[in-house]
Amino acid sequence: MQVINLNQKLSLFSDHWSPKIIGRVSGHDIKLAKIAGDFIWHDHAEEDELFFVISGTLYIDFRERATAELNPGDMIIAPAGVEHRPRTKDGMEVQLMLVEPGQIKHTGDVEHELTVRDYERI
Amino acid sequence: MQVINLNQKLSLFSDHWSPKIIGRVSGHDIKLAKIAGDFIWHDHAEEDELFFVISGTLYIDFRERATAELNPGDMIIAPAGVEHRPRTKDGMEVQLMLVEPGQIKHTGDVEHELTVRDYERI
Repeated sequence: MQVINLNQKLSLFSDHWSPKIIGRVSGHDIKLAKIAGDFIWHDHAEEDELFFVISGTLYIDFRERATAELNPGDMIIAPAGVEHRPRTKDGMEVQLMLVEPGQIKHTGDVEHELTVRDYERI
Repeated sequence: MQVINLNQKLSLFSDHWSPKIIGRVSGHDIKLAKIAGDFIWHDHAEEDELFFVISGTLYIDFRERATAELNPGDMIIAPAGVEHRPRTKDGMEVQLMLVEPGQIKHTGDVEHELTVRDYERI
């Protein structure tokens, strides 16, 4: 058990679209991610997924509703089964915190070159 | 599904030691709380509990290890079964985000005048 500082953890990596685990709360993972550009359309059949923006502007597209725009201090919860596509503006970097069940795959059931199989813990 | 802004949600209440639910992620609640002064010693037999400091300086005492000091951007996860006591410095207010299983009671098995039975959703 130790104090976890978000900025210190963010300083430990620079790769995009590769969430890092910083803690676990009763089976849910707390992750940090840096992203830039467009992700792929996907959903998570069983898991809700929380996106919390630390820096930058995040867009999340949905199939049947308006795109959400999130700025620092904003969060959104993508419910299980709802297809979504995170992306950033003009390829700029966004820093995120994620809260989601530990067994989640960030590309859902889509197998893609971006799919991470074993999340690094930092 | 909507964008949730932490500062907007924090503006909706001013009472201390009464966490408010702002979202749910696969059975875990995301809560905001304002606290000031000393809480009671307690643990949660079954649930881990994450404290993330938004403003102010939070201290968490533990029975068998050093007190943790958390400033904005810091988090700590109190594991299930570990007795702890949140408190603030000189009674100053601290604003917190909590992540914990939805069934948790914030005073654990301790029945106290501060015990909240039904968390308000804001």
